[in-house]
Amino acid sequence: MALLGAAPRVVNVGLDLFALTLAALDVPAVHVDWRPPAGGDPRLAALLARLDARRAAIDRANATALERLTSGAPFLVDCRPAREALELPERTVLHSGPPLPWERVSEPVRAAILGAIRYEGWAANDDAARELVERGAVRLEPCHHHATAGPMAGVVTPSMPVFVVENRAHGTRGHATINEGLGKVLRYGANDDSVLARLNWIATEAGPLLGAGLRALGGIDLRALMAQALRMADEMHQRNLAATALLTRAMMPGIAQVGGRHHAVARLAEFLAGNDQFFLNLAMAAGKSMVDPAGGVAGSTLVTVMARNGTDFGIRVSGCGERWFTAPVNMPQGLYFPGFGPDDANPDMGDSAIVETIGLGAFAMVAAPAVARFLGAGGTAEAAAMTAEMREICAGEHPHFRIPALDDRGSPVGVDARLVVETSITPAINTGIASRRAGVGQIGAGVVRAPLGCFTAALEALGAE
Amino acid sequence: MALLGAAPRVVNVGLDLFALTLAALDVPAVHVDWRPPAGGDPRLAALLARLDARRAAIDRANATALERLTSGAPFLVDCRPAREALELPERTVLHSGPPLPWERVSEPVRAAILGAIRYEGWAANDDAARELVERGAVRLEPCHHHATAGPMAGVVTPSMPVFVVENRAHGTRGHATINEGLGKVLRYGANDDSVLARLNWIATEAGPLLGAGLRALGGIDLRALMAQALRMADEMHQRNLAATALLTRAMMPGIAQVGGRHHAVARLAEFLAGNDQFFLNLAMAAGKSMVDPAGGVAGSTLVTVMARNGTDFGIRVSGCGERWFTAPVNMPQGLYFPGFGPDDANPDMGDSAIVETIGLGAFAMVAAPAVARFLGAGGTAEAAAMTAEMREICAGEHPHFRIPALDDRGSPVGVDARLVVETSITPAINTGIASRRAGVGQIGAGVVRAPLGCFTAALEALGAE
Repeated sequence: MALLGAAPRVVNVGLDLFALTLAALDVPAVHVDWRPPAGGDPRLAALLARLDARRAAIDRANATALERLTSGAPFLVDCRPAREALELPERTVLHSGPPLPWERVSEPVRAAILGAIRYEGWAANDDAARELVERGAVRLEPCHHHATAGPMAGVVTPSMPVFVVENRAHGTRGHATINEGLGKVLRYGANDDSVLARLNWIATEAGPLLGAGLRALGGIDLRALMAQALRMADEMHQRNLAATALLTRAMMPGIAQVGGRHHAVARLAEFLAGNDQFFLNLAMAAGKSMVDPAGGVAGSTLVTVMARNGTDFGIRVSGCGERWFTAPVNMPQGLYFPGFGPDDANPDMGDSAIVETIGLGAFAMVAAPAVARFLGAGGTAEAAAMTAEMREICAGEHPHFRIPALDDRGSPVGVDARLVVETSITPAINTGIASRRAGVGQIGAGVVRAPLGCFTAALEALGAE
Repeated sequence: MALLGAAPRVVNVGLDLFALTLAALDVPAVHVDWRPPAGGDPRLAALLARLDARRAAIDRANATALERLTSGAPFLVDCRPAREALELPERTVLHSGPPLPWERVSEPVRAAILGAIRYEGWAANDDAARELVERGAVRLEPCHHHATAGPMAGVVTPSMPVFVVENRAHGTRGHATINEGLGKVLRYGANDDSVLARLNWIATEAGPLLGAGLRALGGIDLRALMAQALRMADEMHQRNLAATALLTRAMMPGIAQVGGRHHAVARLAEFLAGNDQFFLNLAMAAGKSMVDPAGGVAGSTLVTVMARNGTDFGIRVSGCGERWFTAPVNMPQGLYFPGFGPDDANPDMGDSAIVETIGLGAFAMVAAPAVARFLGAGGTAEAAAMTAEMREICAGEHPHFRIPALDDRGSPVGVDARLVVETSITPAINTGIASRRAGVGQIGAGVVRAPLGCFTAALEALGAE
């Protein structure tokens, strides 16, 4: 009788259609956003159930992997040629993402590889360079196989200087090239003379000066710097202004101290002052040094690598060590520079998703509302929603990367492949958009989602064990 | 009948006692935080009523003054000795705040003045220096009378280099010394050999290098830099990390270009890297260049200067031009370094309240939650409350200084003396706390309130016109 005497109180579960109708009629209703696990796919649901039987062991393994991932202590210690830092053999070109045969390499990545071969002087023109690759006289290998993370095309050759980041908690090292700046740059598939001239300056003047300056300083604590930058509206993928300014300020005493030729110091200072994304490559090198110790924990479903090569998206999951799980990469959604649109875009590329893998980038979107606006995702509320969504697929929160807008709650970190498959929420990644044509460069920026296929494949491999 | 049939709905006006009691009993009540104007003071209420009779004219005058205040375009253009930049006569010492006879100067400000006289070589010891001041052989004048804003004691002498900030919208210039860093520093009343040695280095090496570098760069847009820093968790009074890093990055190309002796460049770079508050003095110089054009608008009740000298708090109101209205300065409330407490503190000092005068500092507290914590004011909510409270006494919002946490709403700016007297809300100012004893230096940091007396005095002067 009491029930019938009062107005109905409604809880709606699943499809939101009923709740929306009631809302339109001003009838209060609580909507529970429930979906069947794994989108209702019976095969995946069975796989999840099978993994659930050993839940305690997986949770323990994930806790170990997460602890290794989040306890990293990256220090920037050096900058020297890849030949020395990575012992990179001659006639080897590194690229971003999972391994890829030349035939499947997309146009802008091809352009970057051919440009790099000319830059090294192994061939005088693109035809000759292509021929070297096709007959195996130049080897292509992923950056991730050489303790390196490469932005966009991610091309690294032996004479290119790379930053050396040492994870002092775990003894690993991560590397990345020096960010070339904006406009026509190799990583976006531009490869004309101006691009190669800049690479020459980087190799012969900027790189050696940075290296000598960093060695004089004895190591810059990147974890502290990144934690600080996160408090200063950088998410360290699309926005690196604070981190770049803090790094510049920290490096200049060492650079000035060793820089005998003061015009070289001035040119480097000007380069640093003109490139707001300079720090991105450092965040990636730091990330590489931080994710590697989390790999190889038996039974762990934690994602330790996410990377794209312009053709495939590849992940590694801790319990499967260095094995790649790949699926075709998605197209980024975002904003385009004037004169360009989605038809001009290449599928997504780059190892920069390592930033999301360590809990920054799109995962920390709420810390950088300017990025949310830039990416067309709206304002503060949408940025907060993105971080909240990523929290649903993460095993934990970062103890060092904390977000003031969330009252210092840690950034979500440690993607659990189980949660991705169960919720069908795939990791979001802030990204630049490259032209699908060689020689053009960047045409926009946006967000891309990892394809679900990588995660189901990884989970199947783990379930089969 | 309908009224009696339903539960009572309560609106409580004024004293919150009734509302709190109802809240304790879970009775819903809307509380209106109303107070009688001017705290119920009949004389002030009559003054406000008198001014209200010419409200339209005052509002027009304030709109003019506010437009001048908020349209300033400060550019950092130079750094050179006060002797040249300010045409400061020999044997003149500038100090912060309103004018003050030597007898009323507080201990730490005295120590700074005597130290500066020794630094200039006008006397060999404090006794001789004091004697020069007492017999008028050294003149004391406020910084604000010389287009300058001085932090804490605010001491400027002819050989000290000052930054030159040019307001390109209005043709005014503002100046400030080079921030000395933390620890034992002249501005906090320390004056031993280490303090004077640093001043010597600043005058002979750092200042000339900064000046040459800035002249080579042709002007740095400080309004853009400050707007950016406000988006990066600086309020530019207690926290200047982003602004300092951005400024360092912008200046280094010029400094390196002109810095032939590279060890000098390295020393300066190290000094910049080690001083997170370096930018504060620039914010003050920019502020001085921005407030001066807003002065002298007939009838305007807008506050153009707030400044303290360790004894008095002084303000200027636009309609009264360069006339000072003073009242005894308050003690700051805040946190103390270990071993110090409120009994050790000097009353508040410094021209740095110019930062609040242009809508930053405590007025922009919500943009810098880290500062709210540091000042014992709590977290994000308290920081937002501080900005909201300051909005109640401000004539407008800053069109350039926008706060991401408020969805890009402008910072409150343009204190209206009428609103201060009407609401009894006095401007809040973020501040450092100096020891009341000479030679000690900074002992804490906190918030201080401007004394109401300045504002009532200014309003009475305007009302008498």
